[in-house]
Amino acid sequence: MTNKHLYGLILAGGRGTRFWPKSRKRRAKQVLDFLGEGTLIQQTASRLSVLIPPERLWILTNNYLRDEIVRQLPEVPKKQILAEPAQRNTAPAIGLAAHILQSIDPDAVMGVFPSDHYVSKPKRFLKLVKAAYREAAQGRIALLGLQPRWPETGYGYVEFPPGEAAPGSTNAVRVVRFREKPSFEDAQAFVAAGNFFWNGGMFFWRAGVVLDQLARHLPKTAGLLAELPKFGSRQFGAKLAEVFPQCENISIDYAVLERAEGVVGIAADDIGWNDVGSWNAVYELLPRDKEGNTRRGDLLPYSSSGNFVDVPGKLVALLGVKDLVIVDTPDALLIADRHRVQNVGDLVKHLEARKRDELL
Amino acid sequence: MTNKHLYGLILAGGRGTRFWPKSRKRRAKQVLDFLGEGTLIQQTASRLSVLIPPERLWILTNNYLRDEIVRQLPEVPKKQILAEPAQRNTAPAIGLAAHILQSIDPDAVMGVFPSDHYVSKPKRFLKLVKAAYREAAQGRIALLGLQPRWPETGYGYVEFPPGEAAPGSTNAVRVVRFREKPSFEDAQAFVAAGNFFWNGGMFFWRAGVVLDQLARHLPKTAGLLAELPKFGSRQFGAKLAEVFPQCENISIDYAVLERAEGVVGIAADDIGWNDVGSWNAVYELLPRDKEGNTRRGDLLPYSSSGNFVDVPGKLVALLGVKDLVIVDTPDALLIADRHRVQNVGDLVKHLEARKRDELL
Repeated sequence: MTNKHLYGLILAGGRGTRFWPKSRKRRAKQVLDFLGEGTLIQQTASRLSVLIPPERLWILTNNYLRDEIVRQLPEVPKKQILAEPAQRNTAPAIGLAAHILQSIDPDAVMGVFPSDHYVSKPKRFLKLVKAAYREAAQGRIALLGLQPRWPETGYGYVEFPPGEAAPGSTNAVRVVRFREKPSFEDAQAFVAAGNFFWNGGMFFWRAGVVLDQLARHLPKTAGLLAELPKFGSRQFGAKLAEVFPQCENISIDYAVLERAEGVVGIAADDIGWNDVGSWNAVYELLPRDKEGNTRRGDLLPYSSSGNFVDVPGKLVALLGVKDLVIVDTPDALLIADRHRVQNVGDLVKHLEARKRDELL
Repeated sequence: MTNKHLYGLILAGGRGTRFWPKSRKRRAKQVLDFLGEGTLIQQTASRLSVLIPPERLWILTNNYLRDEIVRQLPEVPKKQILAEPAQRNTAPAIGLAAHILQSIDPDAVMGVFPSDHYVSKPKRFLKLVKAAYREAAQGRIALLGLQPRWPETGYGYVEFPPGEAAPGSTNAVRVVRFREKPSFEDAQAFVAAGNFFWNGGMFFWRAGVVLDQLARHLPKTAGLLAELPKFGSRQFGAKLAEVFPQCENISIDYAVLERAEGVVGIAADDIGWNDVGSWNAVYELLPRDKEGNTRRGDLLPYSSSGNFVDVPGKLVALLGVKDLVIVDTPDALLIADRHRVQNVGDLVKHLEARKRDELL
């Protein structure tokens, strides 16, 4: 298989309020560097680059983030970093990319990747991505299933036929069913069963297949996107701004994947995947001292354990405190119970309600 | 009684490491403003000013703090704000002041006041101070006893004869005994007994009485101070720098008061006294919201209670945290369990051990 028809689409339109105060409208999770190894989107592009060079990498983001992403990915041609005129979830975004790629390369095979996940074992990851591309090149819809490590209720699951999915194998397996965020009991059963995998939001298909599927399952959006003139033409931007906001606000999972026939999956083994879903996830990725405090910056912990500290430029002294998340920025300081950081988004809602736009 | 022989001596040589990171060598507790009502030394001077105008107010401090105190108390003549050449506890400091005052006014009666305590009811306080001065003018050694509000083991107590001390009365009562920092059991018994009062470190006596007592109980220090030339002379500073470091390092309580005959006390009623001994004491003096978080600055508390926050210039968001002390400065941030802040001094010792002089 030649790689020259393989394209990467990185979805980078998310807001990521769970990383406030570091994340803001113009500094969402994907453009932040949590581990000192580059920002999440830089790591995503770099991880793919062996298979997909920058000239075949496309990025969809929003107007708040585009300039920052252009700055962070100088190797990616600017015209391939697009701002969606409105937030419309993944189906219209993927449709738009498919529309453009199809006009550039009728044999385009596209892989869709979140911009804000972490993968510590990129070689294993790429082996599986290659396998998925191979399936997609043959006209199938393929996805990566991630081996579940705990009964997470916040993720979607894909069900493979019992006994067929061998984690780490590059053989594709038929997807029996999609199971959106399950109850805890169901999640426990899924993990125990062994044939349920996390849906990591990575999809592989020919651009033409995407367009066909959209025409079938989401005809209004497909029709709107079909009105777009040739990419690169003078009218493209204005027309996109007109039609995109009229597209349905729906995920590609609901709109297409769960309704399509013959979706296949590649079952991943341990690729060191982490969706970096909260400050606590970052805490768990970082090196820590023997009391479990993150080893970073100028920290003086005293009778203190389990603390995540991200305070640049000054000494932080801790006295008798446990399991805190402490994140400082020039205009806002967060101090949270590390076991409650899934509620950081609620703080952001409070700030929105109070019209504290300067902090959003 | 005329006031013109009444002098105030404010002792302002303390370091106050318990208020790190706000307190430093050059910004000790007494020159900090915790309540937005002026710094503690400014409040001390202001509280006394009805009885003791600035021209009869003297301040003993150290070289680190003198400039700041001169700046904070512009109404006090500069020459009356003296830096001790070495840290020698209260006995040599009070002896030095007595030596100077005696040479200026042979009828000088001096009241000694800590620079870093808080008194919320200054009128009642002044009534008692006046009574103590009256005793002192007649040649006695007088002190203020503070009605104990809990069995504190960190303070010294003075014992009055049972049944004689009527809190708030301006009648002086004989001091039976001094009891230094007691055990908790003893402290409980003292509070229950009703005739034990906290020693607030406020003493009243004629300058001549101080000098006589020192000559008797601390002859070496008395002799050294007697070598000093006339205050204001060109040789004074150099001689002070020579003799002061040779003085004994001892408190006036141990050196004189506990050995002197006929010490009397004025038993205070509720004068709103607080020695502001820790961040927790400041917390208790400040207004708080109904969840017990201090109402100050730009605070967004969410499922959080009992927190003390002193972070200027930015929003502080709290999520699921309880009873924290959060104090920010340009070069250091402290996050402590509010019930452990008596150990802040230990943090400072760690910084000293690590030679972090820039933070001390």
